[in-house]
Amino acid sequence: MYGLGVDIGGTTVKIGIFREDGDILEKWEIPTVKDNCGEAILPDIAKSIDEKLKKNGIEKHDVKGIGVGVPAAVTGDGVVKQTANLGWGYKEVRRELEELTGLAVKVENDANVAALGEMWKGGGAGCENMIMVTLGTGVGGGVIIGGQIYSGVHGGAGEIAHICVNFDETESCGCGKKGCLEQYASATGIARLAKMKLADETRNTILKSKGNTAKDVWDAVKAGDEVAISIAQEFAKYLGRGLADLAAVVDPEIFVIGGGVSKAGDILITYVEPVFRSMVFFASKGIKFGMAELGNDAGICGAAKMVL
Amino acid sequence: MYGLGVDIGGTTVKIGIFREDGDILEKWEIPTVKDNCGEAILPDIAKSIDEKLKKNGIEKHDVKGIGVGVPAAVTGDGVVKQTANLGWGYKEVRRELEELTGLAVKVENDANVAALGEMWKGGGAGCENMIMVTLGTGVGGGVIIGGQIYSGVHGGAGEIAHICVNFDETESCGCGKKGCLEQYASATGIARLAKMKLADETRNTILKSKGNTAKDVWDAVKAGDEVAISIAQEFAKYLGRGLADLAAVVDPEIFVIGGGVSKAGDILITYVEPVFRSMVFFASKGIKFGMAELGNDAGICGAAKMVL
Repeated sequence: MYGLGVDIGGTTVKIGIFREDGDILEKWEIPTVKDNCGEAILPDIAKSIDEKLKKNGIEKHDVKGIGVGVPAAVTGDGVVKQTANLGWGYKEVRRELEELTGLAVKVENDANVAALGEMWKGGGAGCENMIMVTLGTGVGGGVIIGGQIYSGVHGGAGEIAHICVNFDETESCGCGKKGCLEQYASATGIARLAKMKLADETRNTILKSKGNTAKDVWDAVKAGDEVAISIAQEFAKYLGRGLADLAAVVDPEIFVIGGGVSKAGDILITYVEPVFRSMVFFASKGIKFGMAELGNDAGICGAAKMVL
Repeated sequence: MYGLGVDIGGTTVKIGIFREDGDILEKWEIPTVKDNCGEAILPDIAKSIDEKLKKNGIEKHDVKGIGVGVPAAVTGDGVVKQTANLGWGYKEVRRELEELTGLAVKVENDANVAALGEMWKGGGAGCENMIMVTLGTGVGGGVIIGGQIYSGVHGGAGEIAHICVNFDETESCGCGKKGCLEQYASATGIARLAKMKLADETRNTILKSKGNTAKDVWDAVKAGDEVAISIAQEFAKYLGRGLADLAAVVDPEIFVIGGGVSKAGDILITYVEPVFRSMVFFASKGIKFGMAELGNDAGICGAAKMVL
């Protein structure tokens, strides 16, 4: 038996055919065509899957189903109410894709799906209770409880980007609230912290000539740049606060950190973990840290796992 | 078939015999004897249960088991590592009580057990995903997911008392951290907020002659006292922050508020709900509020539900 994993992003749709043991038979990408409220996205996926199954000589009765990750909150019946990056408004993703393919479909938020992938085959392997924190352009979160995605009653669980970690913030987050974790711990957030720091910084720093992207900051940290280190400490203060709050609510076995910002790797953990340890409630002090391992494949892996 | 619910507190142990439909056949209390590291507590419970079962003509093979709530973090195998109020250090509660009674035993943190009770027969009836917040001398929290207690990997889930809601706090919480929800939203916390407020308050207020307990504050709020209202707003600010963070992580169907402070009832919700609504991430704006309904019986109800 096989399972299909589909990871719908704002630029491309990633698709993979998986065996039950987790091996990838084939993976590929198609462009995400967002014209006319994204009306072609699901038909394009269905057509592409049909072609690839044929090419691989796989009959549909040998496919358990299709798991789909989408960049939006998803209700229990596979409905998306609103998307920021796909053009969709209200969309019955599960029903439409089932009608287009004749296969069973499960739909989940993409950050939750990536978390499930990391639990299955990545940095959280062997941990049935984990939280994945994806530090990319934004911040994503996925909560895995008892080996399964927990997405909440309204699809809003694991929205850890919007935990408040600074009650004194005056600038608004994209969501309209102030002081959200995403304002500090995303790539955008780190660049923002760097810009603020550089505006009134008198010390010499590589960053003044290099730039202030998250990558610039981490490169400068590795080079021992004092100003970059103070930005990393600021970033770590906010992320550590957020993780401590998560620990007090969910008390997972492990935090798995992923996303572009996590390419800083161990150096990131070096700054964040001590802040977390100083703020975590004592009962949860045994929580471990790990790095995501699947990179861009986390989404298709987790999506396939939903149906396998 | 019957189930037994046991709620171990610092002063008394509450015990109830339940039918499977939730009816209470009999409930009673025995004193909590804490001498010699609380060595008599479990034998006293076992003896008392044996007597009552005999009195009611119930054979042990007609009892599904004993559910126990304890004021401590509990690991998955029913072990308590430390208690503040019972005298116990490391204690294998499940094993010991099973040996004493010959019945199957399940053990959980008392706040979690009370939450399960409210889900079964109280303010959260019909909601399989809920968070109960108990505002008593301290703050207790219980997370129910899929109709079952979720207590985390180290027994530290639902420790919402220790979410940080004020990063500028200079006084320490009992747990050693600073700015925990418990420092503002418990009866003790409200009295503390009132004391600080009264120290530099020039307006007239009933509280100056009455006192500054949580009850004094709520009574004065009901009487329209301006200073008391500003204390209630301060309380609500912190509790609203905490609930918004909980919503972003767990996204439950309902928050059920219980404990002595919740006797203020609707007036409490009047202050807290608008703060929550202003801070909650949009996906979770459908979360409802309810009041606990079982009072002191929540513990024995939830404990019995664990085995029924």
